[in-house]
Amino acid sequence: RTLARMATELRCQCIATHSKFIPPRSIQDVKLIQSGPHCKNIEVIATLKDGKEVCLDPTAPWVQRIINAILAK
Amino acid sequence: RTLARMATELRCQCIATHSKFIPPRSIQDVKLIQSGPHCKNIEVIATLKDGKEVCLDPTAPWVQRIINAILAK
Repeated sequence: RTLARMATELRCQCIATHSKFIPPRSIQDVKLIQSGPHCKNIEVIATLKDGKEVCLDPTAPWVQRIINAILAK
Repeated sequence: RTLARMATELRCQCIATHSKFIPPRSIQDVKLIQSGPHCKNIEVIATLKDGKEVCLDPTAPWVQRIINAILAK
């Protein structure tokens, strides 16, 4: 599964980032993807509890706050 | 894809956490999974550049530091 997923992600995943605040309680998981040969950007992808996936801006202070809020729970 | 993945993850993903420091440069991505009905723990799963997946302790200071290091790049 890991190899299949890696093979499909040899490019940036996000074409735009969601700019509005998303409350941590509506987030199911958050994936942080390092920059690398596949993509020059760090990418932050949140899966919401309704199943939607949204890209977030890693430099936005509220994004860093919700990530730390999840870790601190 | 999202629904298929959610259906397979209705339980905790981690049975133990990796206790030794992992340098951020060897990490490809990090997934933070909120606690919920499927699992009472917050789970942090890092995918390393060699494809291995390791569970990390969300309360370990070094884990919080590498997450913030990825975001701050």
